[in-house]
Amino acid sequence: MKSATDYVWFNTAKKREYINITGSVEKLVAKSGIKEGMVLVSAMHITAGVYVNDDEPGLIADIDQWLEKIAPFNPHYQHHHTGETNGDAHLKNLLVHHQVVVPISEGRLDLGPWQQIFYAEFDGQRRKRLVIKAIGE
Amino acid sequence: MKSATDYVWFNTAKKREYINITGSVEKLVAKSGIKEGMVLVSAMHITAGVYVNDDEPGLIADIDQWLEKIAPFNPHYQHHHTGETNGDAHLKNLLVHHQVVVPISEGRLDLGPWQQIFYAEFDGQRRKRLVIKAIGE
Amino acid sequence: MKSATDYVWFNTAKKREYINITGSVEKLVAKSGIKEGMVLVSAMHITAGVYVNDDEPGLIADIDQWLEKIAPFNPHYQHHHTGETNGDAHLKNLLVHHQVVVPISEGRLDLGPWQQIFYAEFDGQRRKRLVIKAIGE
Repeated sequence: MKSATDYVWFNTAKKREYINITGSVEKLVAKSGIKEGMVLVSAMHITAGVYVNDDEPGLIADIDQWLEKIAPFNPHYQHHHTGETNGDAHLKNLLVHHQVVVPISEGRLDLGPWQQIFYAEFDGQRRKRLVIKAIGE
Repeated sequence: MKSATDYVWFNTAKKREYINITGSVEKLVAKSGIKEGMVLVSAMHITAGVYVNDDEPGLIADIDQWLEKIAPFNPHYQHHHTGETNGDAHLKNLLVHHQVVVPISEGRLDLGPWQQIFYAEFDGQRRKRLVIKAIGE
Repeated sequence: MKSATDYVWFNTAKKREYINITGSVEKLVAKSGIKEGMVLVSAMHITAGVYVNDDEPGLIADIDQWLEKIAPFNPHYQHHHTGETNGDAHLKNLLVHHQVVVPISEGRLDLGPWQQIFYAEFDGQRRKRLVIKAIGE
């Protein structure tokens, strides 16, 4: 069995951003030499997500508005008694999830034609980290 | 390490359908000869999901109504400026997620008594594809 | 390739509970001897979830209230024609998801500083089970 691991850092300009990280995942898979396996892409924070969808600006705006509607900013979350103000970012993380697992076939990401991997920042403007780990052979 | 991969095609009669694919996943696991490992079941489209739940028609109707309530069809999604009309299907995909990972133990899917694997189509009536990949030994 | 599997049983006092299971997952990873790999943590029921987030009581209360708002108890789910009353627990399971995959690096769970793994019970007060499976080498 082979494995390979990489970490990617982010420090977004805005509180919420959606960053296409497919290239970073492809790079690790190529470096790993794995032909058949799986790659795990996982945010290492509890206020950021990872998802697979289309890289289309209108859709990204729709996703952002939808997440804010379903899991809105609200000053009254109980979590805020700790001094935090990011309760909504935790709920957005739960909704989007913090990780995806992508198949590797014949040495490449086995994604459909429109599938792109995104890092979704919900509480940015500070350094945050993502882990990419491939296993297979 | 062993691996095995299969692709399953769908072309649903309706826009939204929920199809029990547990048998297809079991078949690949049996073919793979893997005794201990994991199997990834992943929609290759951005308007379809994969989930694990009960195969009970009333529940499936509840899930469909609930998804339409949380991520409704709406002509005004910004994604529709591209000419598409399926913005809701992208949001339903985000909610349900496009993939599950199921454990393989003693050569079989290690699911609980009521757990069944479903392909959830949110924008059907055309050919779409699912990838199933098992790794282990 | 190495693998290791464990099962954890729950029988919660309340209908809904959120239980930090990070220690159980760490124990299996240590026992497995795996240095580089992945561990799958998966509820074996269709009315329970597994997620990764912060172990902060205010946040857990927020999550519980939010899930009840998005996927509320409702006597009128069609699933209830079977005699069940737990339609909401199935929808909460869909929202939270029943499984996570966590990276193993240098023999340890490769989680961020605040990431803890939770079993989320949505229909408790009876015996239910979780599977933890690590693969790697």
